[in-house]
Amino acid sequence: MPPTDRVREHAGQGATTVAAHRARRRLRADQARQLADLLRRQLLTGGFENGTLPHESTLATDYRATRNTVREALDLLRAEGLVERFPGVGTVVVAQKYPHGLDHLQGLAETLREHGTVTNEVRTMGPAPAPAPVADRLHLPPGSDVLYIERLRRLNGLPLSLDLTYIPLALGPLDLGTALLGADLENTDVFRLLETITGRRLGHAEITLEAVNADTHSAAVLEAPRGSAVLMLERLTHLADGRPVDLEFIRFRGDRIAMSGLLHRSL
Amino acid sequence: MPPTDRVREHAGQGATTVAAHRARRRLRADQARQLADLLRRQLLTGGFENGTLPHESTLATDYRATRNTVREALDLLRAEGLVERFPGVGTVVVAQKYPHGLDHLQGLAETLREHGTVTNEVRTMGPAPAPAPVADRLHLPPGSDVLYIERLRRLNGLPLSLDLTYIPLALGPLDLGTALLGADLENTDVFRLLETITGRRLGHAEITLEAVNADTHSAAVLEAPRGSAVLMLERLTHLADGRPVDLEFIRFRGDRIAMSGLLHRSL
Repeated sequence: MPPTDRVREHAGQGATTVAAHRARRRLRADQARQLADLLRRQLLTGGFENGTLPHESTLATDYRATRNTVREALDLLRAEGLVERFPGVGTVVVAQKYPHGLDHLQGLAETLREHGTVTNEVRTMGPAPAPAPVADRLHLPPGSDVLYIERLRRLNGLPLSLDLTYIPLALGPLDLGTALLGADLENTDVFRLLETITGRRLGHAEITLEAVNADTHSAAVLEAPRGSAVLMLERLTHLADGRPVDLEFIRFRGDRIAMSGLLHRSL
Repeated sequence: MPPTDRVREHAGQGATTVAAHRARRRLRADQARQLADLLRRQLLTGGFENGTLPHESTLATDYRATRNTVREALDLLRAEGLVERFPGVGTVVVAQKYPHGLDHLQGLAETLREHGTVTNEVRTMGPAPAPAPVADRLHLPPGSDVLYIERLRRLNGLPLSLDLTYIPLALGPLDLGTALLGADLENTDVFRLLETITGRRLGHAEITLEAVNADTHSAAVLEAPRGSAVLMLERLTHLADGRPVDLEFIRFRGDRIAMSGLLHRSL
């Protein structure tokens, strides 16, 4: 009698076996996640020589895991678009996440300076009446005009983020709108332009970070798969004197950006 | 001759019409995203009375948008699981995102104190040999044992996050592992337990935040749809004296958590 028949002989035994099988599968999925998290960190920080992961059997020994668990962990990383597996070659790192600082208020080109060149495709730009929540947050009278800018931002040609930006047209006597309309937005961070045009430093920003699934159209613009995870940043930036000057809604491709910084227990 | 036939009469005219139609669709998708971003903020901060959004026509007037754009924006919010639309009732806020502080180092129960009770389902807990990258980051000799804890964390019964935690078994002469194994992990933040057991304050943490699509198994544990966006937090926490004491890999449900804080231009 083959083993599978033997365990099916009694219903009770069969149920136990099914439960045991399910528990094993759950355990393996948990262990695969655990291993994938450890490998993710290493591959994103360039921890593997030549961008190639060790052989499955080496990983199994190093991490005291079964070969099945290792395979499942590598499948998770592949599903995230971080590695590819080639027969005869092994598992190769194919994605790079760029580190975006979370400690200081920085523009994209500033924070990614050492990783390459940021270019901005200006998809829309022009004055428009501020919607009520925008006027409110920028401390403008209801109905004031703001400059609305929509940019697709690339690092070394690869789409990184889609940014929607609202800026007051005037800041006291300063015609901020006209100055920005004539500026080199293709190659310069808005932060830098704001500081140059106003002659003032930026101060602080209130930020909110969320993970959302990209809608179909946003995914297409970012050249990302439909439904892919997006790191969404809402940021209201103030001048050093406290005046709000820049409200932004930024969708970062989840597979290309990691935010990192330091938190302190108390100030 | 019906209009559709008329525009097809000449290939040139037809192409222009198709291009114009595509441009209109793109424009509407862009405007819908822009509107959805403004509404998202308001609905997440309780900005709509009774949790009900204004009528489509009111939104269209308020935001100078077409009814089609408004409908498309509401569809985007529905796809994100933030609103539901009921005939005769309108558009109702159905999701709540809880604000997780990004300014100070806080445990989940601490940061969500005013929103309800955090409970932790301990899925796995026990000593295990530290994998090399864990030993390295916790400054432990290779092969040391660590305490591994896996918890599903809930706020008022709703799954919020799945946390994988590595903690040194011993901290100098202190048997941290045994103390934690006997502690009330179901109802207490690890941060609080670490401070109580060691008699020391936590100091700082290095964090990395990413947006990823949940793998099938993680989604099932979090009771979230397959592939849903997850806010992934990796956090290495140190005691005030600088010793690393807690390495965590946390998957927050993207539809239930928003991280917020302040950034400064310079320190």
